[in-house]
Amino acid sequence: MSKQIRLNAFAMNSVGHLAPGLWRHPRDQSTRYTDIHYWIELAKTLERGCIDGLFIADVLGVYDVYGASADAALSNAVQVPVNDPLQLVPAMAAATRHLGFGVTASVSFEHPFPFARRMSTLDHLTQGRAGWNIVTSYLSSGARNLGHHDQLSHDQRYAMAEEYLQVCYKLWETSWEADALRVDRDSGVYADPQKVHGIDHEGTYFKVPGLHLSEPSPQRTPVIYQAGASTRGRAFAAANAECVFVAAPSKPVLKKQVAELRAAAVAAGRGANDILVLEQLTVIVAPTDEAALGLLREYREYASPRGALTLMSGWTGIDFAQYSADQVLREVPSEAIQSVVEAFTRADPTRTWSTAEIADYCAIGGDGPVLVGSAQTVADQLQEWVEDTDVDGFNLASVVAPETFAAVVDLLVPELQRRGLFKREYAEGSLRNKLFGHGDQLRAPHPVARLRAEAGR
Amino acid sequence: MSKQIRLNAFAMNSVGHLAPGLWRHPRDQSTRYTDIHYWIELAKTLERGCIDGLFIADVLGVYDVYGASADAALSNAVQVPVNDPLQLVPAMAAATRHLGFGVTASVSFEHPFPFARRMSTLDHLTQGRAGWNIVTSYLSSGARNLGHHDQLSHDQRYAMAEEYLQVCYKLWETSWEADALRVDRDSGVYADPQKVHGIDHEGTYFKVPGLHLSEPSPQRTPVIYQAGASTRGRAFAAANAECVFVAAPSKPVLKKQVAELRAAAVAAGRGANDILVLEQLTVIVAPTDEAALGLLREYREYASPRGALTLMSGWTGIDFAQYSADQVLREVPSEAIQSVVEAFTRADPTRTWSTAEIADYCAIGGDGPVLVGSAQTVADQLQEWVEDTDVDGFNLASVVAPETFAAVVDLLVPELQRRGLFKREYAEGSLRNKLFGHGDQLRAPHPVARLRAEAGR
Repeated sequence: MSKQIRLNAFAMNSVGHLAPGLWRHPRDQSTRYTDIHYWIELAKTLERGCIDGLFIADVLGVYDVYGASADAALSNAVQVPVNDPLQLVPAMAAATRHLGFGVTASVSFEHPFPFARRMSTLDHLTQGRAGWNIVTSYLSSGARNLGHHDQLSHDQRYAMAEEYLQVCYKLWETSWEADALRVDRDSGVYADPQKVHGIDHEGTYFKVPGLHLSEPSPQRTPVIYQAGASTRGRAFAAANAECVFVAAPSKPVLKKQVAELRAAAVAAGRGANDILVLEQLTVIVAPTDEAALGLLREYREYASPRGALTLMSGWTGIDFAQYSADQVLREVPSEAIQSVVEAFTRADPTRTWSTAEIADYCAIGGDGPVLVGSAQTVADQLQEWVEDTDVDGFNLASVVAPETFAAVVDLLVPELQRRGLFKREYAEGSLRNKLFGHGDQLRAPHPVARLRAEAGR
Repeated sequence: MSKQIRLNAFAMNSVGHLAPGLWRHPRDQSTRYTDIHYWIELAKTLERGCIDGLFIADVLGVYDVYGASADAALSNAVQVPVNDPLQLVPAMAAATRHLGFGVTASVSFEHPFPFARRMSTLDHLTQGRAGWNIVTSYLSSGARNLGHHDQLSHDQRYAMAEEYLQVCYKLWETSWEADALRVDRDSGVYADPQKVHGIDHEGTYFKVPGLHLSEPSPQRTPVIYQAGASTRGRAFAAANAECVFVAAPSKPVLKKQVAELRAAAVAAGRGANDILVLEQLTVIVAPTDEAALGLLREYREYASPRGALTLMSGWTGIDFAQYSADQVLREVPSEAIQSVVEAFTRADPTRTWSTAEIADYCAIGGDGPVLVGSAQTVADQLQEWVEDTDVDGFNLASVVAPETFAAVVDLLVPELQRRGLFKREYAEGSLRNKLFGHGDQLRAPHPVARLRAEAGR
């Protein structure tokens, strides 16, 4: 096998992300999340290990399904407090040269006109290392605070998201022609006004006549990430995304998802490999298998089952506080519960999946698999995951920050490099060029190519 | 006189700000505005000179009144392209310890719920050095792109702005009690849920039931800046602002504005000195008066009269492209024009204020005065401005970047320090504490004190 594995680090501008309770671990530093130097150090660590990118999740709301209140989330720091991810990136970019940055932003929270400027600014300040994780759904607690009492239907949300993306594409790709920027000190012409155009967008949800306020950034459109799991979400990703995040509980499930995504990309007129699929995964690696298992045991002492159920309740909409720890959930007569049980049974058919077992599973790494062992053991497993499922790489969650990522960089990466499975140095250029090797900007058959052609660019 | 002068640097995340055409100057580096290191270097320079803060202007639209198109703005880089100011700050904060940062953001562009989180994030990442310049008006080209076809009336805009601010205050000041944050590793309690509250805001423009997503930042409410010049704007500033920006053309006009602002603050139940008034000003300083005048002559060679009129047209709504360069504007039978002429006549009653003279005046430093000379000369003048007008300090615009600011730091600041008019080192603590010496957070009689009391905090 010579396919290069892609590795992303997965974080959030908050204390707890996918390992609730672990902020209590004596070596954990995630309570430093409000310190910009904490993030700069993390970025340097990741770049030392040639990690492709740091992907920053976000929610604009609280996990308030568990116990029908935000109490458990606040008490256990379950993704709350949570700060703006965007502002972390330029400082990390200033301290690195190659690391990519994926920032989560919902199409529901800001008009596309100022948002497109934010992302162009980010792409400029990172010198072309910006990615955007497009979120179309959200916690209902977030919607309530934005006055969205009448939430759009699922399909309307995707229609709105698609138009939002069209507005952004037009601003990024068609407003400024390739040679619009002159910066000619002698003639005194900064930009040629004949080559900068209003986008004249008139749609169902947005009307944007004007020109893009930012001059073209290195990538123009940031690298597009998506994590949609529904049928409509998959179609959206197939048409637009360059990287798709999944969190499959097992290799057979992942294999099916990867195949479906590639088929959907082909159906959308794109290549099967125009989308990189990244599986969410937690790696606990140590010098020996025994040491890694010891670390896992140690970590579990700090894990918060209540925090894990708070996450699960938020994700599924089911209030797990109503079930006792030893409730075997298979016995609960609820379609929603059975769908959850089914998913976990795919991860491990030998367990009964009581409330406590689900809490135990999700307390480390959320809903993604956890690999534990020496670098050799974990590298063997990752290699198997790639060979068996055709996945392109992994979105690695943290348990103890920054220990989990430092161990990946210091132990796992060198082993993958020895096997020829991971790059020893970054490619040059933008994040897009590093990932795909085809230059800094999107190209056909991605739909922006048609938009450019329609605009005569 | 022992009153300490406050000095802010005034910039914009764009090529041109208030000196159109000067990007062509061989020593000007403002075309590096997309490079985060350019901003980090600037921040270090300013901190070396104990400058109080860097204030970053913003517009979300283009200056398209001149010639009824954006052509002149694009060609001369008149505040377009213009990028998001917010993302510059954390990287500059990481490279400094004391410099404050004022970021411009309009209440028209983002819902207060996510916006409040952005500002809390900024205050965390700067360790309490964040300020917010509240903008309530905007270029109509910006409004069109946001689908605000039916712009609110001037008064409605202020009513909306006031409610917007109320929502932010409630999120910043009342959602998290002072002792809500526990971070207790032993008991596993990060925040005490009994001490974190939804704000239950139900107003005319916004309904926000939820809790603030960010834990309290050092200042909670960032330092509030405002630049409103209308009657309603002054009342808004008098009630809320801690620093007010003005751009008076002369000392008598400034003296009147300062007195009116202080009176308005007292009428609003606050102290006359609870508001710092900062006059927009350009300083061209060199080792000798002759050298400074030489610099001004040199700068004028690169100034763009068309760019200056593009700015003036945007500010006044008058298309100056319709008048020839030698048109004496006093002779134009238009109330709007006469109001402009009147303002300029206050700056200099000896000139005829033709179109060309107005362009000449505004090409260096926009609509603010320009002081030129040795450090002694400029310090004498600044001292006079402060003594004659009771202004608190100056918001210094740049001509050639970063040369203008470097000269202020290297020549003017030491002279002011020798005279005991400017601090030799920063005070400790947050931006608010550095400016007012009363601690990190707002206190009575500022209206947040009443909001806190109403919420039982």
